Amino acid sequence: MKLNSTPRRDGYYMPSELAPHKCTYLLWPERPDNWRDGAKPAQKAFRQVVETIAKYEPVVLGVNQSQYLHVLGMNMRNVSVVEISNNDSWIRDSGATMVINDYGEMRAVDWGFNGYGGTEGGIYYPWDFDDYVGAKMANIEKVDRYEVADFILEGGSIHSDGEGTLLVTEETLLSPDRNPDMTREQIEDKLCEYTGAEKVLWVPYGVYRDEDTNGHVDNICQFVAPGKVVLAWEDNVDDPQHERSMKDLEYLESETDARGRKLEIIKIHVPNPVTITKEEAEGVDSVEGTFPRREGDRLPASYINYYNCNGAIILPVFDDPHDEEAIKTLEGLFPDRVIEPIYAREILLGGGNIHCITQQVPLA
Amino acid sequence: MKLNSTPRRDGYYMPSELAPHKCTYLLWPERPDNWRDGAKPAQKAFRQVVETIAKYEPVVLGVNQSQYLHVLGMNMRNVSVVEISNNDSWIRDSGATMVINDYGEMRAVDWGFNGYGGTEGGIYYPWDFDDYVGAKMANIEKVDRYEVADFILEGGSIHSDGEGTLLVTEETLLSPDRNPDMTREQIEDKLCEYTGAEKVLWVPYGVYRDEDTNGHVDNICQFVAPGKVVLAWEDNVDDPQHERSMKDLEYLESETDARGRKLEIIKIHVPNPVTITKEEAEGVDSVEGTFPRREGDRLPASYINYYNCNGAIILPVFDDPHDEEAIKTLEGLFPDRVIEPIYAREILLGGGNIHCITQQVPLA
Repeated sequence: MKLNSTPRRDGYYMPSELAPHKCTYLLWPERPDNWRDGAKPAQKAFRQVVETIAKYEPVVLGVNQSQYLHVLGMNMRNVSVVEISNNDSWIRDSGATMVINDYGEMRAVDWGFNGYGGTEGGIYYPWDFDDYVGAKMANIEKVDRYEVADFILEGGSIHSDGEGTLLVTEETLLSPDRNPDMTREQIEDKLCEYTGAEKVLWVPYGVYRDEDTNGHVDNICQFVAPGKVVLAWEDNVDDPQHERSMKDLEYLESETDARGRKLEIIKIHVPNPVTITKEEAEGVDSVEGTFPRREGDRLPASYINYYNCNGAIILPVFDDPHDEEAIKTLEGLFPDRVIEPIYAREILLGGGNIHCITQQVPLA
Repeated sequence: MKLNSTPRRDGYYMPSELAPHKCTYLLWPERPDNWRDGAKPAQKAFRQVVETIAKYEPVVLGVNQSQYLHVLGMNMRNVSVVEISNNDSWIRDSGATMVINDYGEMRAVDWGFNGYGGTEGGIYYPWDFDDYVGAKMANIEKVDRYEVADFILEGGSIHSDGEGTLLVTEETLLSPDRNPDMTREQIEDKLCEYTGAEKVLWVPYGVYRDEDTNGHVDNICQFVAPGKVVLAWEDNVDDPQHERSMKDLEYLESETDARGRKLEIIKIHVPNPVTITKEEAEGVDSVEGTFPRREGDRLPASYINYYNCNGAIILPVFDDPHDEEAIKTLEGLFPDRVIEPIYAREILLGGGNIHCITQQVPLA
């Protein structure tokens, strides 16, 4: 059922992604105006992500009817294939944010969704199916739902430490195409009301050229523990990423979290610039109203867009000299988790990465 | 996952519908070539069934994307609204038969489905979405699945007492448009292999003019307990139903169940003949290939098509002098259950009734 209260009023909060999960949701990629070659290379990469996560926790894979029989026939272990009509497969952004309370109960927060900026700033049209993805997740999980119809938010634009602090970027949350009539303070209030958080940390910038999302936080930094954050880094002062990471670092070093802790910041160097090849660009059906994928365009490649599932970290890698350092850093940070690197160029070509295509359901 | 074994081999069986349920599935009616006036009167009746069952157990309501937002907006208590593309709303027939074992585990049996008789004898075309409904139920419930691709069976053509006996009709199971290459014995073997039953009782006839289904057993008789059956009855010897009920009675009296019990048979008189009015017929979009609903055609009205949910019986009534007797009989048979009569003419106009539009998920 749809509820008329808010999570904060009812004693619910958004746990950290690092807390135990019940399962992970994904959506199967399909649209040929975003995924090259009829989405077949992307589907191969998604399948690898699905089957890797399914080694650690149950996966629910939402599929348009048109691909249902095909995906069902893959007969993947620990994977439920359900029907969820969708415009594109970024369930981190279109899906529900699950909140829990101290009595083992769960509810869903179903944010407004406008295709990353509506008919002006958005990246595809229409987004009518994506707007129901959160409600469908809630209904499949058989939990009640807070519908936040008057507030546009993608799940990839917030990170929670589960102890009262949210990470967001100014770039995304203050972009003019989401909630133009709300002040920074009103946005903070809304976020806290629906995630149970007490403090919002406003990192200034996302990753360079993360134009699809206006710089989602989940590509630039994320919590590895309360009070401890990894940050996408670039040493080369001539690369536009350097200045962005530098400013984010300065901000994070200057702040404390909801519990008053100074933040420890661990840098993870980004891969060398990744650009779209001619062949890749030619494989995408150009469609007016869909964000173009053009030869030579730089993609927002970052290791930070990894996903924390039970006992593992699903890490995008790029066949890049920096891969090894990212793996080593995360191994050091998570001695109890398996680091699962997945070559993720095909996901990146669609505009996001592994974190963007996953959405956790916490264990209540 | 799809399994390569059978329920019998793995120690699973189909419990009685009277055993405790986890929830009930329904599908929302929509097709205007079967449901009059754009299915709006039927939707009203379905909603009453949904909300009545939801008083007693959780309901999962499968909806085509086209009606999703509308149905979600009804915000019904204890009802999950999920997306299940469907051609029509007879989930008793297109849905999965859930089987359980003695260790609290559940699996799904996903029978073949061909629209009640394929392109020759069937009642609509295509039935491609309906054929996936069973798989989708299994995946939403996150249980493994036996796929019986080589055997056509509608769930409304079997009743289980949960103690080794199945009720079927010869009319349906031996109809030439389902499994024409199988003998009666081969059909029995298949039924027992996938329901865990040991004995099949072959009632000769269904209800008169139950042409949509070729005489499904769930409109003519059902178990009220192991060894105890209610039978649709007609006193009037001039009514074609009389001869059918008489033959079925004779058969049931002559048989014993899997445990060797003689059957006790309780008659429930059918309502007076129900025929389609001019207005009702005119409200249906005529479409070549869909079973026609013509003025004056008699409908297979029967009280036996009731549904057993936790603590209640959801009973179709017809504003008929026999309603009261049916209610009284069931009250006598089920002192611990609430009898919930629902005026069901609009469901009957579509060719079935309350049992046909429901499918239980047992508590494992």
